[in-house]
Amino acid sequence: MPDATVFEVFPTPSDSPFVIEHIAEEFTSMCPITGHPDFGVVTLRYEPHAAKDGGKCIELKSLKLYYHSFRNEGAFFEAVTNIIRDDLVKVINPNWLQIETNWKGRGGIRSVVRVDFGDVPKHFLGR
Amino acid sequence: MPDATVFEVFPTPSDSPFVIEHIAEEFTSMCPITGHPDFGVVTLRYEPHAAKDGGKCIELKSLKLYYHSFRNEGAFFEAVTNIIRDDLVKVINPNWLQIETNWKGRGGIRSVVRVDFGDVPKHFLGR
Amino acid sequence: MPDATVFEVFPTPSDSPFVIEHIAEEFTSMCPITGHPDFGVVTLRYEPHAAKDGGKCIELKSLKLYYHSFRNEGAFFEAVTNIIRDDLVKVINPNWLQIETNWKGRGGIRSVVRVDFGDVPKHFLGR
Amino acid sequence: MPDATVFEVFPTPSDSPFVIEHIAEEFTSMCPITGHPDFGVVTLRYEPHAAKDGGKCIELKSLKLYYHSFRNEGAFFEAVTNIIRDDLVKVINPNWLQIETNWKGRGGIRSVVRVDFGDVPKHFLGR
Amino acid sequence: MPDATVFEVFPTPSDSPFVIEHIAEEFTSMCPITGHPDFGVVTLRYEPHAAKDGGKCIELKSLKLYYHSFRNEGAFFEAVTNIIRDDLVKVINPNWLQIETNWKGRGGIRSVVRVDFGDVPKHFLGR
Amino acid sequence: MPDATVFEVFPTPSDSPFVIEHIAEEFTSMCPITGHPDFGVVTLRYEPHAAKDGGKCIELKSLKLYYHSFRNEGAFFEAVTNIIRDDLVKVINPNWLQIETNWKGRGGIRSVVRVDFGDVPKHFLGR
Amino acid sequence: MPDATVFEVFPTPSDSPFVIEHIAEEFTSMCPITGHPDFGVVTLRYEPHAAKDGGKCIELKSLKLYYHSFRNEGAFFEAVTNIIRDDLVKVINPNWLQIETNWKGRGGIRSVVRVDFGDVPKHFLGR
Amino acid sequence: MPDATVFEVFPTPSDSPFVIEHIAEEFTSMCPITGHPDFGVVTLRYEPHAAKDGGKCIELKSLKLYYHSFRNEGAFFEAVTNIIRDDLVKVINPNWLQIETNWKGRGGIRSVVRVDFGDVPKHFLGR
Amino acid sequence: MPDATVFEVFPTPSDSPFVIEHIAEEFTSMCPITGHPDFGVVTLRYEPHAAKDGGKCIELKSLKLYYHSFRNEGAFFEAVTNIIRDDLVKVINPNWLQIETNWKGRGGIRSVVRVDFGDVPKHFLGR
Amino acid sequence: MPDATVFEVFPTPSDSPFVIEHIAEEFTSMCPITGHPDFGVVTLRYEPHAAKDGGKCIELKSLKLYYHSFRNEGAFFEAVTNIIRDDLVKVINPNWLQIETNWKGRGGIRSVVRVDFGDVPKHFLGR
Repeated sequence: MPDATVFEVFPTPSDSPFVIEHIAEEFTSMCPITGHPDFGVVTLRYEPHAAKDGGKCIELKSLKLYYHSFRNEGAFFEAVTNIIRDDLVKVINPNWLQIETNWKGRGGIRSVVRVDFGDVPKHFLGR
Repeated sequence: MPDATVFEVFPTPSDSPFVIEHIAEEFTSMCPITGHPDFGVVTLRYEPHAAKDGGKCIELKSLKLYYHSFRNEGAFFEAVTNIIRDDLVKVINPNWLQIETNWKGRGGIRSVVRVDFGDVPKHFLGR
Repeated sequence: MPDATVFEVFPTPSDSPFVIEHIAEEFTSMCPITGHPDFGVVTLRYEPHAAKDGGKCIELKSLKLYYHSFRNEGAFFEAVTNIIRDDLVKVINPNWLQIETNWKGRGGIRSVVRVDFGDVPKHFLGR
Repeated sequence: MPDATVFEVFPTPSDSPFVIEHIAEEFTSMCPITGHPDFGVVTLRYEPHAAKDGGKCIELKSLKLYYHSFRNEGAFFEAVTNIIRDDLVKVINPNWLQIETNWKGRGGIRSVVRVDFGDVPKHFLGR
Repeated sequence: MPDATVFEVFPTPSDSPFVIEHIAEEFTSMCPITGHPDFGVVTLRYEPHAAKDGGKCIELKSLKLYYHSFRNEGAFFEAVTNIIRDDLVKVINPNWLQIETNWKGRGGIRSVVRVDFGDVPKHFLGR
Repeated sequence: MPDATVFEVFPTPSDSPFVIEHIAEEFTSMCPITGHPDFGVVTLRYEPHAAKDGGKCIELKSLKLYYHSFRNEGAFFEAVTNIIRDDLVKVINPNWLQIETNWKGRGGIRSVVRVDFGDVPKHFLGR
Repeated sequence: MPDATVFEVFPTPSDSPFVIEHIAEEFTSMCPITGHPDFGVVTLRYEPHAAKDGGKCIELKSLKLYYHSFRNEGAFFEAVTNIIRDDLVKVINPNWLQIETNWKGRGGIRSVVRVDFGDVPKHFLGR
Repeated sequence: MPDATVFEVFPTPSDSPFVIEHIAEEFTSMCPITGHPDFGVVTLRYEPHAAKDGGKCIELKSLKLYYHSFRNEGAFFEAVTNIIRDDLVKVINPNWLQIETNWKGRGGIRSVVRVDFGDVPKHFLGR
Repeated sequence: MPDATVFEVFPTPSDSPFVIEHIAEEFTSMCPITGHPDFGVVTLRYEPHAAKDGGKCIELKSLKLYYHSFRNEGAFFEAVTNIIRDDLVKVINPNWLQIETNWKGRGGIRSVVRVDFGDVPKHFLGR
Repeated sequence: MPDATVFEVFPTPSDSPFVIEHIAEEFTSMCPITGHPDFGVVTLRYEPHAAKDGGKCIELKSLKLYYHSFRNEGAFFEAVTNIIRDDLVKVINPNWLQIETNWKGRGGIRSVVRVDFGDVPKHFLGR
């Protein structure tokens, strides 16, 4: 199972809200039906609360280890994307958080799934 | 005729709305007048209802088979695009659904057709 | 003179409005002053009225022939773009129509001209 | 000094507002401090007034000659961009006009300066 | 420590607000934990106040020297980005200022951090 | 079966040898085992004999029709490529002829097959 | 351990030598020291013997399964590349065979390894 | 008919052989059968004789006018390419000359034709 | 000074010669005259001797640390490239080794330096 | 007149021959007939003699100043390229030297001129 216990966080360095984006280009999991490997790019975007309000950032190496824990898991594209959002929201409790997964083609069709928590910050609309 | 009986669906994995995109890069149909083959990319984007409201997702392999059923059909670009939208809306009844077909050039002109069902989610405007 | 008599139209296949885009990458006309050839890309985007309201689509081959009729015509970039818009609006009477011409460089300057008829559909703003 | 006397104009060919863009990819001026050459791309975008209101377009060759007159002038990036806007606004008095200069790198930093006259037309927001 | 004393400024050349962007493609600092070098692109975008209100621009060479002063500093991506914003806001006091840092990959994940001071000018939304 | 009777030829226009390349970007056939469609790009390169020696060129429209005859044929990548070479060599009897097929991915693997008849002309080595 | 028993072969369809290339863009193995995943592209190029001499081709699905068997194996880039060559040479005994592995970056360095069996065919030199 | 009388030449500026390449990206002629316009890129490469041996270069503007004279001519791709070579060889009598025409697609097939006069200089082989 | 003592090596895994390429995209050193930072890409290509002849490979992490030791060194492009070649030849004594350094622009000029030890393997000529 | 007195040289740092490439992307001169500016990229490639034989390298800043001296000079593309070669050969007397100038388009035709002194080193053929 994806292992959310590996996450580490640190306090945001600012009292202003800002946006952080981590793009993991080497994600892999398994198709739950055929057992064949899936490959994709997972993009995390989020806006932590202000430092004075206890805003937290995700530590980068722990994020990488969390993603590795999907390597031999079977899950649909739509489920993987929702699980990552839910696990991250629990540990950093952000103003806004978005997961976009971009999967390599299967049978000539490639897929993108995008889930949000909270409203896209005004500065980011249309990007 | 395009064969909408091949569609299979599964329940959405989340109570939050989110956006799914399937990009089929190997679509082909026939020109109804000349009988020459047309080639294009068909992009499906949709937002299912929440799981608690019976939201449904389209199963990927059944989508592929549905697209294959256009292989020897003659239809105009504009009609193909509207047929796909109508067939998909019937089986998954989404919040929003969009079909964009992007056709290779004919006589030096290439074409794009875009049809929507429902309103583009606020997060997706301008994309 | 550009020959608008070649246009053919057909009824839109849907009662919902939708957007059609035709990108002609091999357009050529003449500079009215020097007589030198100009080369450009002409993009037509439009939204027909609903089928129940008599909405019409432009037939693709007739569009190509219309563009060919500029081959030995002398006209400024700004004029060519406005003429195409006016001729097309007359034959298909759309909700919205846009012509964008994108000209290869002359003396190190390349040019783009964009004219609209009606309001850009909400779905298309920012694209 | 940049030579605004070279400008020539002609009447806009339409009673509808529309947008014209001229992209000059071979602009060069001098750094006022070191005397070293600067190279950049200068993009002019504008919307003339309607023909019935005396709207004017800039003639392309005269624009090229105006840009050439900066060749041996020393001026900062920010000043060049504002001078071009001011000179053009005087001769064509448009609804809207924008100059964007895009400079090649100096010491590992490349720069873009964008100045506007009037409001960006609704159709162009987000582009 | 990053050295904000190197900054030099000059008066904005215009009474109209406008946007300046400096893209530094060769930024490097150190990871505070491992001591390994980080490489990134730092983009500064800002809108100075009008000249009549004492608006100021940052001198380009001093900006380069300021960035160099991070070369042997250890700091997290999020902190580097906030420090640069705070230092620049102090010296030029702009209408709006944005720093976007775009970091090369570490362990298969690349990161982008974006911080703002003030509201994005209406002309820039969605870019 | 692929239909070689559609080929038409015309005499080469020169007494000097030269090289002709036709790149068909919209080729499709079927997998002989699964019945799923395959999509690829087929490149033909050849050098006809001199006109005085009866050199022949392939007529472009007949080549297109020949390629269309594979649309509902089942054949492996390696076989398709060899069949096309053999059929073309029979009708134009060239100095040299090469077929390169470039297939879209299947299960994450994309394939290229290249077959030759005769020696690559000296001018083309390494290209 | 990589599982060479999954390979299946079929007879080459031609008495002429020709070149086949299979590009697997979703290969993954593990670093033998850190246990972290490695990602790469594996390209196989080979020329089978003529059909009359018993030339054999590799079946594409079996090649995919063979590559999957590296998923949880620890091996250096150089060793992976040599193992694949040796296993394939045993089952298809070709005229020539080449494996090129192209690995995503580690700590800012990306790597390519290329091993050959037999001489590059004259037609392929310099490619 | 293509008009070779427009050519102008000037003496090569060097006693050493060297290579000149002119890439005309806006060439157009007509299909001799359908009368439809063809568009392509015409690349001329040549090596003049040494100045002391009467080596000649082609004047650029006259080359442009010569290409314009094909605008309303009907000719096959293969013939156009050979005609240009023959006309140029007559006026500049070079050590080596090559014409490569690269045509936009027709019915999904795009074409390249390459003809040479003399041997490719050793420095240019494989380019 | 660049620190060649950090190098570690391991025995080549094959008795056949093969080619290894390591591309370091984040190299930085200092200009010996101005003290300004230089940024470049350093590509190492080499062919070790066969395993039976004591062939050695460079360990990747030690290569990274060696490159880091140039961070605060002042040296010309030409010298850096030759030093890296000489240091690597000493520790792995290969059949062939090549260093190519690709430097970001200075004053509008970017530079590439390429040094070899031994002859380029036949398989690699022209690449 | 181009000013070859600005050149400075330094001794090559190696007793082995190697190749140096300087790519100047911001070169400008004038058309000798119309007086209009020309823009191009000038690439210098050379192999100095060994250090023990007095091999010399060109100092980068002096090369830049030399190129600046063409800014207001009128000369044909072919002549500019030969002049640069002759001036550089005089000051560094290399084993091999090559100048390639790549000019922006004029009237839809862009040009490349390539001149050599001495033979291309074996390692560089076909690149």
